This record gives sequence, structure tokens and C-alpha cells, in this order.
Amino acid sequence: MRCFSDQREQEKMAIENTNTSPESYPMVAGDGPQSYAMNSTFQKGFVDATKEMVAASIVEKLDLRSMGIDTSSIFQIADLGCSVGPNTFIAVRNMIDAVEQNYQAENQNPSTLEFQVLFNDHSNNDFNTLFKNLPPNRKYYAAGVPGSFQDRLFPKSSLHIVHVSSALHWLSKVPIEVTDSNSSAWNKGNIYCTGFVEEVDKAYAAQFNNDMESFLDARAQELVPGGLMLILIATLPDGIPLSKTIVGKHYDFLGSCLYELAKMGLLSEEKVDSFNFPVFFPFVGEFEKLIRRNGNFSIERMDMFTHPLIHKAQSAEYWVPLFRASFEELFLKHFGEQVVDQIFNHYSKKLEQNISFALNGITHEEIELFIVLKRN
Amino acid sequence: MRCFSDQREQEKMAIENTNTSPESYPMVAGDGPQSYAMNSTFQKGFVDATKEMVAASIVEKLDLRSMGIDTSSIFQIADLGCSVGPNTFIAVRNMIDAVEQNYQAENQNPSTLEFQVLFNDHSNNDFNTLFKNLPPNRKYYAAGVPGSFQDRLFPKSSLHIVHVSSALHWLSKVPIEVTDSNSSAWNKGNIYCTGFVEEVDKAYAAQFNNDMESFLDARAQELVPGGLMLILIATLPDGIPLSKTIVGKHYDFLGSCLYELAKMGLLSEEKVDSFNFPVFFPFVGEFEKLIRRNGNFSIERMDMFTHPLIHKAQSAEYWVPLFRASFEELFLKHFGEQVVDQIFNHYSKKLEQNISFALNGITHEEIELFIVLKRN
Repeated sequence: MRCFSDQREQEKMAIENTNTSPESYPMVAGDGPQSYAMNSTFQKGFVDATKEMVAASIVEKLDLRSMGIDTSSIFQIADLGCSVGPNTFIAVRNMIDAVEQNYQAENQNPSTLEFQVLFNDHSNNDFNTLFKNLPPNRKYYAAGVPGSFQDRLFPKSSLHIVHVSSALHWLSKVPIEVTDSNSSAWNKGNIYCTGFVEEVDKAYAAQFNNDMESFLDARAQELVPGGLMLILIATLPDGIPLSKTIVGKHYDFLGSCLYELAKMGLLSEEKVDSFNFPVFFPFVGEFEKLIRRNGNFSIERMDMFTHPLIHKAQSAEYWVPLFRASFEELFLKHFGEQVVDQIFNHYSKKLEQNISFALNGITHEEIELFIVLKRN
Repeated sequence: MRCFSDQREQEKMAIENTNTSPESYPMVAGDGPQSYAMNSTFQKGFVDATKEMVAASIVEKLDLRSMGIDTSSIFQIADLGCSVGPNTFIAVRNMIDAVEQNYQAENQNPSTLEFQVLFNDHSNNDFNTLFKNLPPNRKYYAAGVPGSFQDRLFPKSSLHIVHVSSALHWLSKVPIEVTDSNSSAWNKGNIYCTGFVEEVDKAYAAQFNNDMESFLDARAQELVPGGLMLILIATLPDGIPLSKTIVGKHYDFLGSCLYELAKMGLLSEEKVDSFNFPVFFPFVGEFEKLIRRNGNFSIERMDMFTHPLIHKAQSAEYWVPLFRASFEELFLKHFGEQVVDQIFNHYSKKLEQNISFALNGITHEEIELFIVLKRN
């Protein structure tokens, strides 16, 4: 009985905690062993994989003269969904090097150019850690900008480059229908958008489209005409459900672990039923259409690749800490602080023992999409 | 013996902690009972007292036309040494209201104007709390800028108004001579610049002048021509030592408490000897000269007043929490975390019992100086 009453209490607390809007689940703060700062080599893989594409895009596609900027200008770069570092600092350095190269290619000396870099993430991101980790010999003035990137964050026409890497798959919220037992989109038995239930898929896709529309409209106002937006996002091959990929299989296995914990009495089944990841991986073709439909940007470049470390994700030892650093806050808010360790311990142990079973039936790989947009 | 060995160990740790440059002692973080957020009504007194002066300065002295800014411009305001709020948010709102009033006075509609406010403090300031407390219905885009205001913080010619309230008395470091037992400026027996020892006074004044020169040079580069800097700083009547004022008396009494704790064996006398506040209150005339000597600014307005709450500082109940919220970090770094509670408990108890004695001999009041500078 005590156990049951504790559980109810922690669920009540957890529900109260989630009554904030918009939803936001920052990466694990600080620089401890479970922090994002210490467990983001997978995300660093994106930075490394796109380094040359970023450089080439900035050198080739950024037309300094037509933007009316010269060496006396202030060049402004925003990194959206930056988390706490260190990946954001590496990405920023790559972009600044490329801008300087662009100036030099136009026979301009970039040494008098001043850069301001605006690091953005939700207001509950650990900006204290971000600021403490700022590279001491950086070539730019740094600022932190708290808030959701589905809203306006910066003054009009103030940015020259926007960078957003591995962040756009986060939705502003779980679509309400998928947690509603009276809806045909109720996602009972799954914890994410598998791609197999049409109504669930529609609800998630509609939320993603709304969020992307808000995102693109906000950036259209903030970027100067000719300014670039560099996006890295995980997408799916057209028509392939997420559950056919490595990430989908991991989510499925985690879902089965949560239901096991419910059977063991640690979580209520109802609570597991109402748990859904606020993330969505669009089809690559749909994503492109969405940008064209918005109409504020031209697509200057599209590259697709497979994440260089994706096969490392086929080990529990690699996957679980990475996964926890990104998603712990989500579990904490939904299930309550007291059970988070137990959830991850159970999940980790089960995955170690059953990795082959968990990942059985993968038929496709996610497509990492690097896409460069130019503000009309 | 155990006590002695513990003490040595904690002092060693404290020394290691102070080997960072530049020195910075953020206000107490978070919003707990000892936090700056909950114990800064004295500093709010400055905001309230200067509200009308701030508004009048912006309306009368900010020449929008000659600065070439109109309603399509981005108006940038920086608050330096902002801490965690809420005072900074009130000050910012007052400034924005006044800028809008100025636009209206010039028959311009400010509704299309966009404001960006840059909140600055040291990188170990609690920006997480600052960001969480940002007013939800604010009229501006907010950004946090970590770093010392003795250095450059913002791109060239990017700011229209700089505001710095109750922050410039913090030095970038304690002048090295005053902690050197071989120097004629060794400040043995005192924990601050009393104004009675000529060599100590010279060392502190030189440090303050250097810091102010760096501060003014940096701001001269960051402010647009015609941009305003609004400064509120505690000063002394010309020729009057700090120890003749309420603040000085409080510092003296605290110093005597620290030496008592040394006699009781809780602190080493050597450690108390080497403890000095990195703060300096300049003579009002000297401060004015310093600005004129810098040459980058015209003085548009000077107002002197007495802090409306200064007499509340004559109660231990009011003074100690206020003082601790501002200075705890300094004690923590110098004496070590383990003794900070004991120091403040002892100090609080003694001050309660001896407030009349502690404040005996006050002959002068500090002069709160509000000074408005315009970038040439």
C-alpha cells in the first residue's frame, strides 16, 4: 500500500510539473558523468560529418556584397538548440572560419570584422554551464538567448547565419490526441510515432508541420535577405516507418521495458500509456515540400548521409548514456524524479542482455539531411 | 589538532579556488531565503530612487534623429552587472518606457520599434535564474552576456543605452600590495579601504582608476555616437574616509568579528589579515575628473542623493541578509565553504547585540551619484 500511495504522489507531482507551456526538456545539465556535455559524442558526429558541407555552403552561397556587409559590419550568427557545449562551440568555430574565408576570397581583410554569436536554447537549458565552458580565445562576442525557437527570439533582420543541428525533431508538445483515450489517435502501447498507426502519424505530422511553419516564419523575419540557414535534421526515407530503423527499434525496446516496470508495480500502466516522445522524424520528401510551401527561403543545397556513428548505437553501453543525457528530463517530468534511476537501470540491463533481439528487423537507416536555405 | 588540520585543509582549498582571473564574486544564486533575488530590496531602492531621473535623461538627452535611428531600427540596451533579477527587469522596463516616450515626443510611433536587451554579469553569475525570471510579457528580445565589464562585451557601435547600477564599486581584483606583508600598503588589521592609511588608499584608488579606464574605453567602443550611459554609483564626499560612513562602520565591525573568530581558533589571523574587500567608493569629485580625463563622453547630468533606505541599514536584521546575499561568495572563496555559516552567524549575533556601538561615530553619509554620459 505504501508503495502505491508513494507512486500516486509522485505521479501527482509529475503532472503538476508538466503544466507548463511550451514543453521543454533540456539536455542533462552540468558536466557530471550523466551530463549532455559528457555524453554527446553522437551529436558531435553531426558536427564532424557536416564540417566540410558547412564550410563550402558559407564560402559559396553567402553573397557578402549583395547583403551589403563589409569588414566594418557586425556579423551575427545564431546557433539554435545549442544545449551546453562543447558541440556548439566547434560548430561555431567552423562557421566563423568559413565566413573569414569568404571575406578573403572577395579580397577583403576579415581582421576588423566583429562576430556576435547568439547561443539559443530553452530557458531551462543550463546556460550557466554553457557560459563557463565558452572557449577562452574565441573570436566572437557571445550571448545566450533563452526561449523556444518556434517563437521569435531575435530582432528583425539581425542575423546573417542561423545554424540548427539535431534539434528540429523536438516538437513544441506531444499532440494532444495521442494521449486521449477517446481519440482514434490514442497511441496506447507505443511511446513514439512508430509510423504504423495512421491517425497517430497524422497527429504527429500535423504538430511537426505547425512547429516547422512557426519556426520558418520566425527565422524569415530574423534573417537578413540573403542570410543563410543551415539545418541538420534526422529524416526518414519516404514511406518508411520510424520503427524500421535503429532509433525506432531502440524506442520500441524502451517502451517494452516501461510496460515491464508497470507489470512489476513500479509504474502505473496508465502512466506508461500516456507517455509519448515529443519528437518526430519527417520523411525527407515531406520536409523539402514543407520548406518550399513556406516560400520565404530558397533551397541552396541538400545533402543526405548516414550518421558515421549510427552503428555504435547498436551497443547498450554506447546508447543508454547518450539517450539518458538527451531524454532524462522527459522521464523526470512524466514519471517523477524518484523512479528515473530505476527506469534507466532496468532499461540498461535489459538492453545489454537483449541487444540483438531489440534491434532485430531493422530494414532501413535514418537519413541525416543537411539542407541550406537562403532568405529571399 | 583535528580542528587545526581541517582549517589548514579548507584554507588550502580556498586558496586554490582563488587562483582564477579576473576575480568575480556573483551574488548568491537561485531564489532561496539567502539569495540575492530575495535580498536585494536595498538595491531596488536605487532603481526606485533613480526612476524619474532615468526617464527624464532618456527623454531629454537621447537625440534619436542625430543618432540616425527611427521606428524601423533595432534599439539595443545593455544592463551591466545585472545579477539575477528582479531589479534589472524593473530598470529595463523604466528605460524602455522612456525611449518610447521619446519616440512619441518626436511624433514617431514606437509600436514597430524592436528592443533587444543584453543582460550582462560575470560568467559565474546565475544566468539560469535570471532567464527563468524574465518577465513573460516583456517588450524586448532578451539575451544574457557573460563576462567582466572591464573588458569588451559587445560588438562595436551596437548599443544605444548602457545602464550600470550599484556595480562599478566592484574592483577587478584586490590591489596586490594590500595583501603583501612586505609592502608599505599592507592593509593589516583592516578588511577594506578605510581611507585612513595613505598607501592603502593609493593602491585601491589606482586599481579603481585602472578598472574605470578599461570600463570607459570598452563602452566608448560599444556605444553608438550619441548613445547614453546611465551610471549609479556610491561615492564619498570629497576628502571623507569611508570609515566615517554607515557602510564603513559596518565593514569595521565585521572586521572586528573576523579577528574575534581568529582568536577563537576558527580562522587563522593570517587569513583574516589577507582578507580585503575588492570594492572601492571614490570621492565624487575624483570620479567626475576620471570621466573627463577619459575624454570619450560628455557629462549630461549629475544628481546626488542619499539612499532612501540607508537608515534601515542601521538594523542587523536588515543589513546582514542583504550583505550576505552580495558578499557570501567572497567569504566562501577566501575562508572556505565550511566556515561561512559560522562567520555570518557570529557576525549577525554580535551586530544585533552591539548595533549602537558598531555604528558609533558616523559623521557623513555616502553620496549616491547618478550620472548620465553621452558618447561623443
